[in-house]
Amino acid sequence: MMIDKDTRILIVGLGVIGGSYAIALSREGYHVSCITKEPEDVRYALARGMIEEGSTDPDPTLIANADIIVFALYPATFVEWVRENGHLIKETTLVTDVSGVKSGVVYTVQELLGDRVEFISAHPMAGRERSGVEFADPEVFRGANYIVTPTERNTPEAIQTCKELGRILGFAKISELSVEEHDRMIGFLSQLTHVIAVTLMTSNDTPGLEKYTGDSFRDLTRIAKINDAMWSELFISNKAALLAEMDRFIGEFSAFRDMLRASDREGMREKMRESTARRTLFDKPKIG
Amino acid sequence: MMIDKDTRILIVGLGVIGGSYAIALSREGYHVSCITKEPEDVRYALARGMIEEGSTDPDPTLIANADIIVFALYPATFVEWVRENGHLIKETTLVTDVSGVKSGVVYTVQELLGDRVEFISAHPMAGRERSGVEFADPEVFRGANYIVTPTERNTPEAIQTCKELGRILGFAKISELSVEEHDRMIGFLSQLTHVIAVTLMTSNDTPGLEKYTGDSFRDLTRIAKINDAMWSELFISNKAALLAEMDRFIGEFSAFRDMLRASDREGMREKMRESTARRTLFDKPKIG
Repeated sequence: MMIDKDTRILIVGLGVIGGSYAIALSREGYHVSCITKEPEDVRYALARGMIEEGSTDPDPTLIANADIIVFALYPATFVEWVRENGHLIKETTLVTDVSGVKSGVVYTVQELLGDRVEFISAHPMAGRERSGVEFADPEVFRGANYIVTPTERNTPEAIQTCKELGRILGFAKISELSVEEHDRMIGFLSQLTHVIAVTLMTSNDTPGLEKYTGDSFRDLTRIAKINDAMWSELFISNKAALLAEMDRFIGEFSAFRDMLRASDREGMREKMRESTARRTLFDKPKIG
Repeated sequence: MMIDKDTRILIVGLGVIGGSYAIALSREGYHVSCITKEPEDVRYALARGMIEEGSTDPDPTLIANADIIVFALYPATFVEWVRENGHLIKETTLVTDVSGVKSGVVYTVQELLGDRVEFISAHPMAGRERSGVEFADPEVFRGANYIVTPTERNTPEAIQTCKELGRILGFAKISELSVEEHDRMIGFLSQLTHVIAVTLMTSNDTPGLEKYTGDSFRDLTRIAKINDAMWSELFISNKAALLAEMDRFIGEFSAFRDMLRASDREGMREKMRESTARRTLFDKPKIG
């Protein structure tokens, strides 16, 4: 499928990410519609020109008219939606998503849609600390990663179309990972960091600590303001990979504690030098 | 002692912090001199007008002429310097420092100087990832905390003068903590966060991970680029407090892991809500 200005894109779930997709795609001149739970979110999106049409029901006409459907729901809600309404999707429609975890989602949805409709999964690695369509802003895609996670059921054409969508949305880097590689990577880079931030905030409630905080502590806990409904579901959906990363982190952290306890200065310095050298790889590339 | 434009301030140790003190104080019109190890650092500071005089030796005249001496050395080097050269300091001179840990330093230095010279300790909570006088920049003091840690040996006059110095340097918040409160606070807010950042960098060396990193991981590991000589010494100097914070963190982190393992979604959500609420306290105040 080629994406052109006649392409009709249906977004299911109008939160921060779904809303940001709607704004970006409407600005680029595509026909965007939505299905989302709250009537006021539909009105909000219509009033701002984010969508041309919207419904709070799984409207068969909206679904049948879509060339591309983007699911921007929480993983379990997404799977449930496809189970109940997947038969309304027409055969030529390409289905994609924005789920932050893949192994618990991709195979199930592909199984539900069978050979009739192709589902190619993607993860736009962007977001905001606040939730709701009123915080939608496609600026969060600039400089961010968009990862396509094909399985052996996917066609080269669908993979290309899905990548093209990422480029239209404004992502800086478009890449491909297997479902399993993706979930291990997310378990470490994203989920483990959120667990650490939350744990830092809950492990010490000495009154007045905030008066002395500096930028280091603020940086490590920025993501401790967290959407508990979404992240608890994402953690459980990726339980095996996240547990493995947590155990590895505890092991390494405990080894450092043992070096400190033994006043093993050279051992700690070696870890710090390794950390300093490796962190350089993760520096943000200069834009422009 | 009143600090006025005739006040002569000697800085011992011209690194990032000592250098930033020198720039800030010279700009404000005070007489600044320095004693530091490397001849090229003295030349650098003289050429840029950061100091009026400088020496690489514990020059008795520079020391005797100082109204205020600021030690900006690593803790162990500071204690050693006072042990060897403390007798050169004249009785009316006020001695202060910038050490990031206090219990291993303050009592020892006060003991060495006895009742002859007053030492009032302070911690400017600011710094940079790079070390060396060429990275000195008093801008790092803006919006930052300056903490005075008096003991029962200190006079109200010295405490006031030390706070006045913090205001002149441009710190936003000047406060007082006991030596022990300070070290517990630092163990948590600063040292534990550095151990976590280092551990995150060293616990997973999967090739190519950096291609997928987002801002969350970058934020949590910014301080993983670390001066290994300085921080290993600071950790050991504050071993008891840091070990206590590390153990508390491991306990809380392991409890979270157990909730995840049990798919205890409500337990994790409760921690996340606690974390979200508490993090709000730590938001940066708007400046201006």
